[in-house]
Amino acid sequence: MGFLKYFLIFIPISIVADLMKVSPMWLFLLSSLAIIPLAGVMGEATEEISFYSGPRIGGFLNATFGNATELIISFFALKAGLFDVVKASIAGSVIGNILLVLGASMLVGGIRYKVQKFNKKVVEVSASMLLFAVIGLTIPAIFTHTIKTEALTARYEWLSIGIAIAMFIIYLLGLYFSFYTHKDLYGSEHQESGEAKWSLKKSITVLILATIAVALESEFLVSSVEPMTHTLGLSEFFVGIIIIPIIGNAAEHSTAVLMAAKNKMDVAVEIAIGSSLQIILFVAPILIFISLLFKPMSIIFNEFELVAMIVSVLIVNRVASDGESNWLEGVQLIAVYIIIAISFLI
Amino acid sequence: MGFLKYFLIFIPISIVADLMKVSPMWLFLLSSLAIIPLAGVMGEATEEISFYSGPRIGGFLNATFGNATELIISFFALKAGLFDVVKASIAGSVIGNILLVLGASMLVGGIRYKVQKFNKKVVEVSASMLLFAVIGLTIPAIFTHTIKTEALTARYEWLSIGIAIAMFIIYLLGLYFSFYTHKDLYGSEHQESGEAKWSLKKSITVLILATIAVALESEFLVSSVEPMTHTLGLSEFFVGIIIIPIIGNAAEHSTAVLMAAKNKMDVAVEIAIGSSLQIILFVAPILIFISLLFKPMSIIFNEFELVAMIVSVLIVNRVASDGESNWLEGVQLIAVYIIIAISFLI
Amino acid sequence: MGFLKYFLIFIPISIVADLMKVSPMWLFLLSSLAIIPLAGVMGEATEEISFYSGPRIGGFLNATFGNATELIISFFALKAGLFDVVKASIAGSVIGNILLVLGASMLVGGIRYKVQKFNKKVVEVSASMLLFAVIGLTIPAIFTHTIKTEALTARYEWLSIGIAIAMFIIYLLGLYFSFYTHKDLYGSEHQESGEAKWSLKKSITVLILATIAVALESEFLVSSVEPMTHTLGLSEFFVGIIIIPIIGNAAEHSTAVLMAAKNKMDVAVEIAIGSSLQIILFVAPILIFISLLFKPMSIIFNEFELVAMIVSVLIVNRVASDGESNWLEGVQLIAVYIIIAISFLI
Repeated sequence: MGFLKYFLIFIPISIVADLMKVSPMWLFLLSSLAIIPLAGVMGEATEEISFYSGPRIGGFLNATFGNATELIISFFALKAGLFDVVKASIAGSVIGNILLVLGASMLVGGIRYKVQKFNKKVVEVSASMLLFAVIGLTIPAIFTHTIKTEALTARYEWLSIGIAIAMFIIYLLGLYFSFYTHKDLYGSEHQESGEAKWSLKKSITVLILATIAVALESEFLVSSVEPMTHTLGLSEFFVGIIIIPIIGNAAEHSTAVLMAAKNKMDVAVEIAIGSSLQIILFVAPILIFISLLFKPMSIIFNEFELVAMIVSVLIVNRVASDGESNWLEGVQLIAVYIIIAISFLI
Repeated sequence: MGFLKYFLIFIPISIVADLMKVSPMWLFLLSSLAIIPLAGVMGEATEEISFYSGPRIGGFLNATFGNATELIISFFALKAGLFDVVKASIAGSVIGNILLVLGASMLVGGIRYKVQKFNKKVVEVSASMLLFAVIGLTIPAIFTHTIKTEALTARYEWLSIGIAIAMFIIYLLGLYFSFYTHKDLYGSEHQESGEAKWSLKKSITVLILATIAVALESEFLVSSVEPMTHTLGLSEFFVGIIIIPIIGNAAEHSTAVLMAAKNKMDVAVEIAIGSSLQIILFVAPILIFISLLFKPMSIIFNEFELVAMIVSVLIVNRVASDGESNWLEGVQLIAVYIIIAISFLI
Repeated sequence: MGFLKYFLIFIPISIVADLMKVSPMWLFLLSSLAIIPLAGVMGEATEEISFYSGPRIGGFLNATFGNATELIISFFALKAGLFDVVKASIAGSVIGNILLVLGASMLVGGIRYKVQKFNKKVVEVSASMLLFAVIGLTIPAIFTHTIKTEALTARYEWLSIGIAIAMFIIYLLGLYFSFYTHKDLYGSEHQESGEAKWSLKKSITVLILATIAVALESEFLVSSVEPMTHTLGLSEFFVGIIIIPIIGNAAEHSTAVLMAAKNKMDVAVEIAIGSSLQIILFVAPILIFISLLFKPMSIIFNEFELVAMIVSVLIVNRVASDGESNWLEGVQLIAVYIIIAISFLI
C-alpha cells in the first residue's frame, strides 16, 4: 500500500463532487483515484481475515476476493447495460496483468538483479490453465464471428451459460488442486507467514466498509463513463480495456512490482498470472450469471479482445517456460502493451 | 479389449437389421457398436503378426494399420461423395485423440498417481511433427479462405495433391527416423515384449476377416449417415467431427486409458499423439490419393476444423513440454473437447 | 564465400548487359548473380573492420551491416514505389532465414551428426524477441484488416511510425543487453577469434566499393522487376517474398549451412534467428523512416505475410526450446518453406 493510503481522501472529495454535480470527467477522475486505495484496503483486510481462518480457507478467500473491486465495478456497469465496457474490462484485466504488471515487475526487478528466477513448475500450471481458459473463450467466439447468423442468438445465450459453468467448475477444481491434491507443489507460498496485525472484528469491519465505499465509487465511475467518453472523444471500448483495468488493479500491481524489486519474483509472477486466471475463470462467469438478473450478457468477445488475450497468453507461456526473467523481457512485455493500447486508442 | 469383445455380437445383429430395413438411426447405432470391437480385433491381429515379422516391420505394420478402421470408413464415405464428413472425421480424429484420449488418460491416471512422467524427448519429436503437419495444412487453407477465387479451384487441386505427397514423404521419413537413424531415442518402446499368442496363420486369417467385417459395417454406417442426420436434425458435420472419430478410435482409446491407469503414461501419450500424427500424415494423404479414383477431394479444411486442430496441437505442445501430467491437465483437455463439441452441436 | 567469389564476374557482365538493353529477365538474372557474392564481400569487409574496432563496436557493426544488402535493394524498391515488393521481401527474409536457412543447416548438419546441440539460453532470448517483434507487427495489422476504414489511413500512418520507433528502440536495447548487461550469456561467440587478414584501409575501401556495386546492381534488379514479372506471369509478390530474400541472403545462408556442417550449430542458429530479428527490428523501421522521404510506407503487412511470419516464429520457438536439432527437424522446416512458396506461387 504505502503512499496509496493517502488517496483515501478522494472518497469524501468525490462524494462532495458528485453532490456539486461536477463535470463527468472530474467525477470519473476522482472516483478512480478513490477506488485505487480501496482495492488495496480490501486486499489487506482479506489477508488479515485469512490469518484467523487458517491457510486453506484463507487462500480461498484471497483467491476469491482478490478481484472484488473489478467485480463490483463490473456489476454496476452490467446494471447500466454497458456490456461492451464490461467485456472490454475483462479482456483488459487479463492483458494488463500479464503485459503491464508482469512487464513492470520484470523490468524493475531486472534492473536490480541481473537474472531473476521463479518456481517454474507453479508458473507452468497457471500459464497452462490460462492457455486452456483463453482457448475455451476463443472457440465459441470463432464460431459466432464466422457464422454470424442472427437466428442463432438464442442458442449462443445457452452456449455462454454453458461455458461460464464449465469455467467456474475448472476454477473450483483448480483451487482443489492447489489447496488439496497438489498443495506441496506450491511449497511455502501458501503458508501464511507473520502474524495478524488486526483483530478479526476489525478486519471484517474494514472489509465491509471498504466494500460499501467501492460500491459507491463504482456507481460514480460507471455513471460518468458515457458522458465523459463523449466529451473527450474516447471510445467506451478504450476506457473498458485500458483505463478501468488499471484502476481496478493498481493496488495489486504495486504489490507485484514491489515484490519483484525485493527479488521475490515468484510472488510477482504468481500475482500477475493468478490474477488473470481469476478474471477469466471466476470474475467472467460470475458476471455472466449476474447478467441473467438484468439482461443476459454473452461470453463472446470481439476479435480485438481475443487477439490481445491470445497474444498475451502465448507470451506468458513463452516467458514462463524457462523460469527466469531479465529486464529486456520486461521491456518487451511493456512494449507489446503500449502497442495494443495505442492501437485501441486511434 | 476386455469387455468390448462382447460387442462383436452386433455384427450379426446389424446384418439382420439391414436385411429387415430398420430405420437409419438404428442401423447407424448397430453398425457403430459392431465397428468398435472390430477395430480392437484388427489391432490385436496386427500386433500378433508383428511378433513374426520382427520389430522393424512390426513397428511399421502397427503404425500403418493402426488407423485401418478410420481408413475403411472414410473410403466408403469418400465413395458416397460425403467429402465434408470425411474431412470432418480427419479433423475430429486429430482433436479427439489429443483432447479426449489424452485428457481421459491424464485424468484417470492422475487420480491414481499424483504426478505421471513420460519420456519428454519422444513426445517432443511427435508433438513437433504434429505442429509442422498442422501448419502444413493451415497455410494453403488460409490462402484459399482469403482469396476465394473460384477460378483458382483447378490450381488448388494440384496444391492439394502436392501437399498430400509432401505429407506422405514426411510420414515415411518419420518412420525412417524412428526405426533407423534415431531408434535408440525410443528405447524399449519399440521392442516387442512377450510372445505371440496366435499362430501366424490365425493372425492373418483374423485380420482378413475383421477387415471384411469392418468394410461391411462401414457401408451400413455411411449409408445411414445422411437419412439419420435428417431425422435427428444433427448436422453431417457434427457426425463427422465427433461421432465417427469416437467410433473409429474407441478401441485405441480404451487401450490408452488402461495404460495410463497402469502408470504407463509413455504408452498412453504415444498412442494419443502418434495416432493423430498418422491421421494427418498417412490417412489424410491416402484419402486424397484414393479420391482421385472417384472425384478429387481437396485438402483444404474449413475454419472450424483448422482452429480446432491448431488449438489442440498448441495444447499438446504445451502439455508435452514438461514431461509430466496430473489430473487437472486431464480435466482441462476434456473441458476444451466438450466446449468444441458443444459449439459444433448448436 | 568460397566459389561464390567467381560470381563477381557478373558485375561487369550485368553492366554491359544493361548498356546493351537486354531483356528485363536477363538483367534481373545477371544482377541477382552479381549481388550474391557482393553481399558476401560486404560481410567479410565488415568483419575485418571489426578486428580493428574491438569486439563491442565490431559486434555492433556486424549486427548492423549484416543486412546492408537487403537494405540497399529495398531502398531502390522504395524509391521506385514498389511498396508491396519491399514489404514482401521483409516478410520473405524472416521466413527464409528461419525456415530455409535453419532447415538447411539442421538437415546438412543432422546428416553428419546424429544430434546437434546449441546454446539454448541464447537462442531462447532471440526466439523470444522474435515472438515479441512479430506480435508487435501483428497487432496493428489485425486492427487495420478488421476495421478497414479508409478514413483511418492518416491515423495508421502515425501508428506505423510509432511502431517503427518502438521496434528500433527495442533493437538498440537488445544490443545493449547482449553487448553490455548480459554479454557473458553469449560467452565466446562475441569474442573475435583469429587475426585480421586485411589492413584497415583495405577493409574500408573494399566495403565502400562493394556498397557502390550493390547499389548499382540493386538499381538494375529493381528496374527489371516489373517488366520481368509481366513477361513471366509471376506476381511481384512472389518475387518479393521468395526470390529477392534468397538473393539478398545467399552469402549468409551458405555460411550458416557451412557452420552446421562443422557441427557449430550455435553459430548457424544465431545467424538464422539473429538475421530475422535484425530484419524486423532494424531493417523494417529504417525503411519506414526512409519512406518518409518519398511517400510514407505503412508497416501493415497483409494476411499472407503475417501468417507466414507467425507460423515461422512459432516453429522456431518450438525448435529452440529443447536446444537440440536433428535431420528430421531440418526436413520439416524446409517442407513448410516449400509449402509456403508453392502457395504463394499458384
